[in-house]
Amino acid sequence: MPGIFWIVPVICLVTVLFIIYLARYVLAKDTGTPKMKEVGDMIFEGAWAFLNRQYRTIAMLAVITAVVVGVVVGLLSGDTTPGNVGQFGIMWRTGVAFLAGAIASGISGFAGMYIAVKSNVRCAAAAQRSWREAIDVAMRGGAVSGFLITTLSLIGVTAIFFAFGGADTPEIAPHLIVGFGFGASFVALFAQLGGGIYTKAADMGADLVGKVEAGIPEDDARNAAVIADLVGDNVGDCAGRGADLFESTAAENIGAMILGATVYAITQDVAWIIFPLVVRAFGLVASMIGLLIVKAKEEEDPMAALNRGYWVSIILSAVGMVITVSIMLGNAWLAAAGLVGIGASVAILYITQYYTDTKYKPVKDLAQASRTGSATNIVGGIGIGFETAFPTTAVIGIALLVAYAFGKASGVEGAGAFGTAVATMGMLMTCPYVLAMDTFGPITDNANGINEMAGAGPQVRKITDRLDAVGNTTKALTKGYALVSAGLAAFLLFQAYMDQVSFLRGTPFEAINLARPEVFVGGLIAVMLVFLFSAWAIQAVGAAAQKIIEEVRRQFRENPKIMTWEAKPDYARAVDITARAGLRGMIKPGVLPVIVPLALGVGFNLIPEYDAAQAVGAMLMVGTIGGIMMAAFMNNAGGAWDNAKKYIEDGQLKDDKGVVQGKRTFAHAAAVVGDTVGDPLKDTAGPSLHVLIKLLSTITLVLVPLFI
Amino acid sequence: MPGIFWIVPVICLVTVLFIIYLARYVLAKDTGTPKMKEVGDMIFEGAWAFLNRQYRTIAMLAVITAVVVGVVVGLLSGDTTPGNVGQFGIMWRTGVAFLAGAIASGISGFAGMYIAVKSNVRCAAAAQRSWREAIDVAMRGGAVSGFLITTLSLIGVTAIFFAFGGADTPEIAPHLIVGFGFGASFVALFAQLGGGIYTKAADMGADLVGKVEAGIPEDDARNAAVIADLVGDNVGDCAGRGADLFESTAAENIGAMILGATVYAITQDVAWIIFPLVVRAFGLVASMIGLLIVKAKEEEDPMAALNRGYWVSIILSAVGMVITVSIMLGNAWLAAAGLVGIGASVAILYITQYYTDTKYKPVKDLAQASRTGSATNIVGGIGIGFETAFPTTAVIGIALLVAYAFGKASGVEGAGAFGTAVATMGMLMTCPYVLAMDTFGPITDNANGINEMAGAGPQVRKITDRLDAVGNTTKALTKGYALVSAGLAAFLLFQAYMDQVSFLRGTPFEAINLARPEVFVGGLIAVMLVFLFSAWAIQAVGAAAQKIIEEVRRQFRENPKIMTWEAKPDYARAVDITARAGLRGMIKPGVLPVIVPLALGVGFNLIPEYDAAQAVGAMLMVGTIGGIMMAAFMNNAGGAWDNAKKYIEDGQLKDDKGVVQGKRTFAHAAAVVGDTVGDPLKDTAGPSLHVLIKLLSTITLVLVPLFI
Repeated sequence: MPGIFWIVPVICLVTVLFIIYLARYVLAKDTGTPKMKEVGDMIFEGAWAFLNRQYRTIAMLAVITAVVVGVVVGLLSGDTTPGNVGQFGIMWRTGVAFLAGAIASGISGFAGMYIAVKSNVRCAAAAQRSWREAIDVAMRGGAVSGFLITTLSLIGVTAIFFAFGGADTPEIAPHLIVGFGFGASFVALFAQLGGGIYTKAADMGADLVGKVEAGIPEDDARNAAVIADLVGDNVGDCAGRGADLFESTAAENIGAMILGATVYAITQDVAWIIFPLVVRAFGLVASMIGLLIVKAKEEEDPMAALNRGYWVSIILSAVGMVITVSIMLGNAWLAAAGLVGIGASVAILYITQYYTDTKYKPVKDLAQASRTGSATNIVGGIGIGFETAFPTTAVIGIALLVAYAFGKASGVEGAGAFGTAVATMGMLMTCPYVLAMDTFGPITDNANGINEMAGAGPQVRKITDRLDAVGNTTKALTKGYALVSAGLAAFLLFQAYMDQVSFLRGTPFEAINLARPEVFVGGLIAVMLVFLFSAWAIQAVGAAAQKIIEEVRRQFRENPKIMTWEAKPDYARAVDITARAGLRGMIKPGVLPVIVPLALGVGFNLIPEYDAAQAVGAMLMVGTIGGIMMAAFMNNAGGAWDNAKKYIEDGQLKDDKGVVQGKRTFAHAAAVVGDTVGDPLKDTAGPSLHVLIKLLSTITLVLVPLFI
Repeated sequence: MPGIFWIVPVICLVTVLFIIYLARYVLAKDTGTPKMKEVGDMIFEGAWAFLNRQYRTIAMLAVITAVVVGVVVGLLSGDTTPGNVGQFGIMWRTGVAFLAGAIASGISGFAGMYIAVKSNVRCAAAAQRSWREAIDVAMRGGAVSGFLITTLSLIGVTAIFFAFGGADTPEIAPHLIVGFGFGASFVALFAQLGGGIYTKAADMGADLVGKVEAGIPEDDARNAAVIADLVGDNVGDCAGRGADLFESTAAENIGAMILGATVYAITQDVAWIIFPLVVRAFGLVASMIGLLIVKAKEEEDPMAALNRGYWVSIILSAVGMVITVSIMLGNAWLAAAGLVGIGASVAILYITQYYTDTKYKPVKDLAQASRTGSATNIVGGIGIGFETAFPTTAVIGIALLVAYAFGKASGVEGAGAFGTAVATMGMLMTCPYVLAMDTFGPITDNANGINEMAGAGPQVRKITDRLDAVGNTTKALTKGYALVSAGLAAFLLFQAYMDQVSFLRGTPFEAINLARPEVFVGGLIAVMLVFLFSAWAIQAVGAAAQKIIEEVRRQFRENPKIMTWEAKPDYARAVDITARAGLRGMIKPGVLPVIVPLALGVGFNLIPEYDAAQAVGAMLMVGTIGGIMMAAFMNNAGGAWDNAKKYIEDGQLKDDKGVVQGKRTFAHAAAVVGDTVGDPLKDTAGPSLHVLIKLLSTITLVLVPLFI
């Protein structure tokens, strides 16, 4: 190994210590008033119970899948296996790598959420003392999750790489570890779907019965579903998005290593293969420093503090990228490709902000449109969502073309694709920091809910209310980031897929010919998959919300004392019902994207004149394109609806005569409908599509032996 | 020419006589009471004025485009022009063919709508006498439009084929007439967009001010926008869909002839080239007989009568297909491919019916979802719409694969693609009949509106009310049909594109390689185009509706006597404002799909290592896939919302205690929101996407010399 490689274990160790430091910092904080602690404990218990049940189901599905995929891939592998490990060698390695990916994803989800759920009540308590302390707790609590996920991904990929012979046969090992990525995306899909269905079913259910039917405020303690709603923010936003980005980083590392192996075959320089691991390590350092720099000033806009830290991470990442490329690859063009990726990550954050922030035209117009009712609000939001396909595409398209051109300009054989790989690495360098900002969202949202339920004073409420609003913004931004990185990672994995087919076929596989009918149909099915998956995810939320509505109605009806504050509702039962509905709902949409590529590849392989590998390749690429657009639509329309409502609630909307149209006006009611419609789109179907995109890549990469 | 060819001019002549007969039949009917006549005249004037202005704008754009495209294509054509007509020969032929297509499309739109707008008041009047007569007038009025469009398309393609040397060099002429298809789709796009924006802006505007703000019923004469609303049904549904299907049939004929020319190069049998024209002629006969069979019985469900006629057309089409293939191509496999297309057209009608009819589960569930408010109604409709991507894809995918396989099995060189061409011809054989059913929609809708405004008696109202409901169903079904035929036509045109590139390059062009970055980006841009186009179309409706709302509000405010029936509102002004807004709104989305392929192709052509022809090919295919899904979503979600509202209005929704939840309940209000949201999706953006799909094909076919 080149000397610089040793930086990877060293930085991993430092990061683990850093995570422990952050966790201890947060856990040492007090849990506030007994009321706060009580609410916090209920949320913790609900979240923990759901995660336990969810991961038990996922574990069962994962073990079955590991065995089935391992056996099938092993049996169908021909005589030419990577590194001549033989059919049995492929079999157990695929299964083990899959399980390792699944377990690592599970651990990062669990541990990250543990700290997040412990942070919320401490953030609520800190708000009693100071603005700055509340931000610190929320940001550091979120950082535990962000750093843990990224570090575990790096440790996992590195470990399995060496376990499967990376030291001796570095050009073979990347081909053997693809199961790790599939395992990670498999878990991520169910984690995101289950969490997403849970959170939005609880949210819709609580709002529809509480606000609409009973006429009580949001987060009111009389609503039986209120705890389920707060739990949902953790299991959906925190655990779900964590699994999503764990998978992005793992899959990106593996994909880049496979492309590196192709360059290695020519240059015989192992640096090309381990380069992604080193870059990721530098990203961790950049994010760590960025985070330590965040020092919010009293009364300062919290977003400004987060932005400062973000820019420090970005600049340090750029420096780290240039240094790593110079030392390891010695090629300025590839460094430039890396900077393109970093630039893309900044661009998408600003674009997302433009479309979803109350400061800009789209959300202001949408608030205006609410004045003529729900219909114009909904139509306006759909328009905004569709429109965002354009800038999202522009960022991805330009980044890919430019990075590819830089890769080609580098003069290294086959490095066009490697250029896009370096760009993807650049994009994902700041992943720990972005994830910390993301988890800031559910923590502050919960802190605000706890303060509402615990009846905290107005000064304290004001702080958590403000932080909650910032959290909404950071959550929306992270979705844009996660989407574009999923798109880039999928393109990278597609290149890796081409390499994998070539490698296993022993002849260059260079064309996916859209003019062949099976290839066109592969593309057609891919976009259909995106639509059907979205439909099922949304319908699962609707079905689950219906169950919650019935339960809350039942409690109000059977126990009239709840409304008069004389009795407490049965929160636990509502949490339990939501959990069951979430778990049941995730199965159908979750299994779909696993079955379809398998059926398509195996099916076309049965007909001799069709080339199944091409059809599957088209499914990958066209599915990625369709998934990106659809997710952009859902995430951004949802974000715009959410903030149009906030804009009105903040009293910023005025009618023609200048009269403020705030809460409880006709316009507000219309905006609430839009917000509710956007919820399952932006928090269930949209983020699940990020994972779907990557799952399509990793599953086909693993299943290559079945259809070559 | 083979003897059977002469059937084409003969049938065209017979059809023209048939159209004259139908038109005279309808025009000979009386126009009812003076009140009815007055309203009918206002609608006629509004529609006529709009169409005049719209087509003046379109004509201007078309002439500019004809000149620019002709000159550019001519200049950039190399030495190898089809038939050695030279650069100037290409130049004027492209321009002339474009204008011929544009003019033929314009004439069919004008003449068809003229009769439709004359039929509505006659249908209203006929309802005073009998059920059966009203159906007859509506169906025959619609048939004028349907037959005229299809016949003009057939005459136009045949005439230009022979004008450009089809008799002497039949293998060259198809390559020269591609401009005809482009001209037709160019006009269709603006016709559909302008009409679609007009109709839904008027509808939304009228409803939001009338029903929501002023609390007066739909089609109430006090609403200044009510005439604009009735005009809209004609210019959107009637003229728009007519232009859409004119284009489908023209483009399908040309595409199939190009593929036939490839087979001709091997077999030297001209039957392969003129076969599409003969099949179309047989389709006209089948539809004519089907229409003459439609004899509604008194009090019978009008849909049953329409269905009888439809099945007669379908069976006769199948017979005609088998006969034509036997005589001209002598190959049973290709006849089977044709039957696959006919089967696909039946399948999509039943699928559309399942998702949008009140008799089936999806709409019933959607009505149930309305009980918890607008948000659940909207989310439910989005779910249904997304889900319909699956059956739509299944129909298209299976039809393509099976027809392609049959084509291959025929043993004719290169006839795999020709198999899909025959299937597309089979699908479009019943086009005149389906179009007649479609135009039945706006005629009966208008007849009902006229009766409402003219204060007709309850017995008369009952008849037109019932016919109006049937018209809603036929309109929804036609959209499914138009979409699938657009998808098949686009696939066919894609094959023709491949042939055209091969023909002009002089070497086989056989692969669109998705693994090339420019090809992937071409696909990415294509789906982006679908989303952005949809966004702009929807936003144009919103902007135009806003203008109408302001105008109606102004009239109510400045003239309080309108509300008390003492004064008439200024309908003409509202019509004028809607027309302006519609025309302004159509430009931006209309120009987009013309500019993007041009920019993409020319742009990538500038970079030597990119293959622009492949990037454009990917744009075509992936854009078609994305467009099909998006249009299926919009059309079906819109149809489901529309009918969920009707289901509630018909008193079919009950709450848990069995109490009917009809008009003016909470559930109804929620369903009205869904219906309003669905309007611009299903009547503006969705149908415009059909045209967009085909425009992408025809424009690239014409522009091939620019990027080879």
